[in-house]
Amino acid sequence: MGNKRVMVPAKDVDLSSIKYQPQIIQAPHVTGFLFRLFVRIVEAPLVGPFIISILKKDNQFDQILRNTVIPEEPMFKPEYPPQEPEPAVIVLDEDGRPEDRVESALNCLPHYDPAELWENSSSPFHYWKIRDYAYAYRSRNVTPSIVAERIISVIEENLRNTPPSPLLISFDAVEVRKQAAASTQRFEEGNPLSILDGIFMAIKDDIDCYPHPSNGASTWMHEVRTVKKDAASVSRLRSCGVILIGKANMHEFGMGTTGNNPNYGTARNPHAPDRYTGGSSSGPAALVASGLCSAALGTDGGGSVRIPSSLCGVVGLKTNYGRTSMEGSLCDSGTVEIIGPIASSVEDVMLVYSAILGSSPATRISLKPSPPCLPTLSFYDDSNALGSLKIGKYTPWFNDVLSTEVSDKCEDALNLLSKAHGCEIKEIVIPELHEMRTAHVVSIGSECLSALNPDIEDGKGGKLTYDTRTSLALFRSFTAADYVAAQCLRRRIMYHHMEIFKKVDIIVTPTTGMTAPKIPPSALESGETDMPTTGYLMRFIIAANLLGLPAISIPVGYDKEGLPIGLQVIGRPWAEATILRIASAVEKLCGESKKRPVSYYDVLKGN
Amino acid sequence: MGNKRVMVPAKDVDLSSIKYQPQIIQAPHVTGFLFRLFVRIVEAPLVGPFIISILKKDNQFDQILRNTVIPEEPMFKPEYPPQEPEPAVIVLDEDGRPEDRVESALNCLPHYDPAELWENSSSPFHYWKIRDYAYAYRSRNVTPSIVAERIISVIEENLRNTPPSPLLISFDAVEVRKQAAASTQRFEEGNPLSILDGIFMAIKDDIDCYPHPSNGASTWMHEVRTVKKDAASVSRLRSCGVILIGKANMHEFGMGTTGNNPNYGTARNPHAPDRYTGGSSSGPAALVASGLCSAALGTDGGGSVRIPSSLCGVVGLKTNYGRTSMEGSLCDSGTVEIIGPIASSVEDVMLVYSAILGSSPATRISLKPSPPCLPTLSFYDDSNALGSLKIGKYTPWFNDVLSTEVSDKCEDALNLLSKAHGCEIKEIVIPELHEMRTAHVVSIGSECLSALNPDIEDGKGGKLTYDTRTSLALFRSFTAADYVAAQCLRRRIMYHHMEIFKKVDIIVTPTTGMTAPKIPPSALESGETDMPTTGYLMRFIIAANLLGLPAISIPVGYDKEGLPIGLQVIGRPWAEATILRIASAVEKLCGESKKRPVSYYDVLKGN
Repeated sequence: MGNKRVMVPAKDVDLSSIKYQPQIIQAPHVTGFLFRLFVRIVEAPLVGPFIISILKKDNQFDQILRNTVIPEEPMFKPEYPPQEPEPAVIVLDEDGRPEDRVESALNCLPHYDPAELWENSSSPFHYWKIRDYAYAYRSRNVTPSIVAERIISVIEENLRNTPPSPLLISFDAVEVRKQAAASTQRFEEGNPLSILDGIFMAIKDDIDCYPHPSNGASTWMHEVRTVKKDAASVSRLRSCGVILIGKANMHEFGMGTTGNNPNYGTARNPHAPDRYTGGSSSGPAALVASGLCSAALGTDGGGSVRIPSSLCGVVGLKTNYGRTSMEGSLCDSGTVEIIGPIASSVEDVMLVYSAILGSSPATRISLKPSPPCLPTLSFYDDSNALGSLKIGKYTPWFNDVLSTEVSDKCEDALNLLSKAHGCEIKEIVIPELHEMRTAHVVSIGSECLSALNPDIEDGKGGKLTYDTRTSLALFRSFTAADYVAAQCLRRRIMYHHMEIFKKVDIIVTPTTGMTAPKIPPSALESGETDMPTTGYLMRFIIAANLLGLPAISIPVGYDKEGLPIGLQVIGRPWAEATILRIASAVEKLCGESKKRPVSYYDVLKGN
Repeated sequence: MGNKRVMVPAKDVDLSSIKYQPQIIQAPHVTGFLFRLFVRIVEAPLVGPFIISILKKDNQFDQILRNTVIPEEPMFKPEYPPQEPEPAVIVLDEDGRPEDRVESALNCLPHYDPAELWENSSSPFHYWKIRDYAYAYRSRNVTPSIVAERIISVIEENLRNTPPSPLLISFDAVEVRKQAAASTQRFEEGNPLSILDGIFMAIKDDIDCYPHPSNGASTWMHEVRTVKKDAASVSRLRSCGVILIGKANMHEFGMGTTGNNPNYGTARNPHAPDRYTGGSSSGPAALVASGLCSAALGTDGGGSVRIPSSLCGVVGLKTNYGRTSMEGSLCDSGTVEIIGPIASSVEDVMLVYSAILGSSPATRISLKPSPPCLPTLSFYDDSNALGSLKIGKYTPWFNDVLSTEVSDKCEDALNLLSKAHGCEIKEIVIPELHEMRTAHVVSIGSECLSALNPDIEDGKGGKLTYDTRTSLALFRSFTAADYVAAQCLRRRIMYHHMEIFKKVDIIVTPTTGMTAPKIPPSALESGETDMPTTGYLMRFIIAANLLGLPAISIPVGYDKEGLPIGLQVIGRPWAEATILRIASAVEKLCGESKKRPVSYYDVLKGN
């Protein structure tokens, strides 16, 4: 009693009175035997719900969702005010052929200079880009089949290593060779399908890629769900000639941000094999970072594309909610997930994005998207498009990181951007960050549980990892009324962000509040629960999921242990073009001296 | 284990294989001491959830929501395919002045003949219409102030009766006199505001009507929520000159369909004082049926306008979801509720509807309504608009009623309609009716609980009626994942209905599966739980709420005990005009011999 809290309407929140509240997560870090014991206890009748209720109380779940009068009505999916068109962009036809969109994207890129490719072997480390592969194939220096053999041998050897780093969890050399041979033949005949022909890509294990199963890194999903064809986004890649090397590792069902995986083994960070890749798209980010493929598709419902991209030093694009079709993915009915590309450079992310985009017509009707656009990077140096952009930064949040190296490097990148292009950096205030996190975990957790429930009730619950089981115990405790309250919060948080976007064009944060965490050896066999680490990894990524906003993670440097640091750029609704443009500028300013990862394979040159 | 059920996609459901499943509700009917004991038990820790889980199991809640793979993605609010314009209608401007819309509505009506009004006192019983009052005021036969005094004296006397029938639960004679005097003066000055000037209306207690409190028939809501102005719909009525007589009784917070109310007393059915009015808009329907006001506003989230209209022998319109603004109502953030008018005739429903309609701009953006239209009833007899309409009837469902008198009378009305206008009656099949009921109760229950939670947690839970507490115990057991699963069902059910509406223009059912149930004397003091009766009352009304479709209940006769029977007409999305046209035709065909209710007051003539 007496604990009722009444929120004022979002429009009446006095931002000048908001004091940043550092995020404090009250939860134990447990691994090994103790973790297995812990999971048994939280799943036990009576005592389990009691423990969960204490955890929730410590983290104010009930106070926020049950004791608070939230004056807004629920917003179950992102609803945006009408959006201004972005400047200096080209519009893509989402109903057109992917090959044509990729061609348009190519026309947005600056002039390509192949000088680096075969000549200067002493130049500093850099990743080969899609246009490098394309040039190499077209100039007959190498064929897709030759590259395929190199990739196959690395992957097969990799699995024999100690420690093993299973980046792919479904792989079929015969299948890869077949696709490579077909691509090679197209080049021989002078008829490549697009700039993406012969480009090697991996698909996260929760997106269908025929003939592989889609297990979401579980051990059993293939038993209850048969993959009969490619997901919509994968099919678009295939029609561009992309060679799909297999299904990339991930945190089971995406329910974790480290990439820990007792089922198939935990993917290792290419920059430090004793550290996590981040997750849940662990395999996709690590495959790109280690040079084994040019790009990969991931899913991002709670940072799952951006977090591993940041920790592995590559670029990850979280597309606007509804921009890419979720048809043929395991999380096809949520309100926060998207499919997005991971690649080593902004231009490669752009090329892949242009191929895969396109929502289903039903989604398009219910969401009213602005048309997909790309920035005309070829005009980039001549245009003043960047100079007029206003960058929003909430400094106390920006600086709420584990080590100041992270925020310092991101700050440096912003200063370079401001100096080079004259972008104004404006201080902003984002209220109700804890409410935002709460609304997000209730949304994604409930939607995920709803999808898994029939199989869990059918006896598959015990076959899940302990990590997943811990999450599900929490998710099970959310009531339907909690879910509705979370959606009322979503409308508030949307209001706050739309107000901010009246003053600035983008919001910047570090992508993660820490660099890649160490893998506790005791966590390899049966996982772990480490909510404080989860808190650091997810600190900045929630808004893009809860509100469906586009966001990108772009590498901006390394900490003193050589671990990558990523900057996150969050855009206005549907404004992928703007964040791609900013990311491209940041890449130019910060990306000159890339570190060669410890695990790196030059499959293009073969050295 | 082994209890997983997989639904085929909605589009692959084979309708020819569907067999109608009569609705069987497994739940006890309990009143009095036993009911109070029952509520204490279901609220007790451990044993309460256990009992609820048995009730839910008997009614297949978990099987439907947790053990079933539902291939559709969630539909959190109604999403409709684009709609064809309705034929022979006039379009109303929802941003215009209510007075102008009422004027347009007036132009849609057949010629008005005042002959009946003051002359023929031996004519069979009929309710005075709004145009009768308007004529009487304009011809100076009576003034609003005179009528007001008659109403006030009846209401004050009514409260002294045995048994009392509290139709209004907030009433202020001074306030009514003031409004009536102002209206009288406008007539004296020859400047009435509209045809609705001087028309007496009541407002359900969950819609704000200043200066009355809005308690939703609870004893405490006024303590935590202050009414500072009229709800949007009420303010529109006021600007048309309507005299608002006070707040009408209802089932507490709308969580029941009988109108039982231990807080303020239970409203009695004007046709039989030992019977329920139906609910939750008990007061609004009874006030209209007893002649005390021309119309009333109710809310309908689970039949709450249509059920009492049917049981009291009046006309009740459930508007399309989003058609009327919910601003200033207690249930302003749900996905199933609307505000709709109750009146004694279709033309009066039309006039009031034209005044109150108009969604908020935000709702309009998120729902994309077709513009509000009214049928041109003045052309009615000349046009063939009705002849081309196809009427859908699912006979085994239509006939699943407590007494065949109900379905027979509805059938008779359809036959008259078919004979008089040539409408074709087509047999249809509506699959998954039990899933529809389940999805609805989870949606409305969770949304309601979410809104009440802060006050319940703040100590108001014990001040709710036992009936409400029973419902809340059930609603509390719904998990967030159940809510999401219910929304996936909503998409399926929408698909099925949209397929049906490709073949027919309207769907017809009895409004309720029984006529007005008796009030158990033992239920007066502390309420009752009677799920089988709830089942009969709610049997046919769910689709309009879960899918947001417009629907109307229209009296078609009486059972042998003289209790009214209502026919329900459900329309395509946004097609209020079509159902109003059909209802008008049915009214002409069936409404000639109205029974004078036991409690009827002729406040216009004063005899």
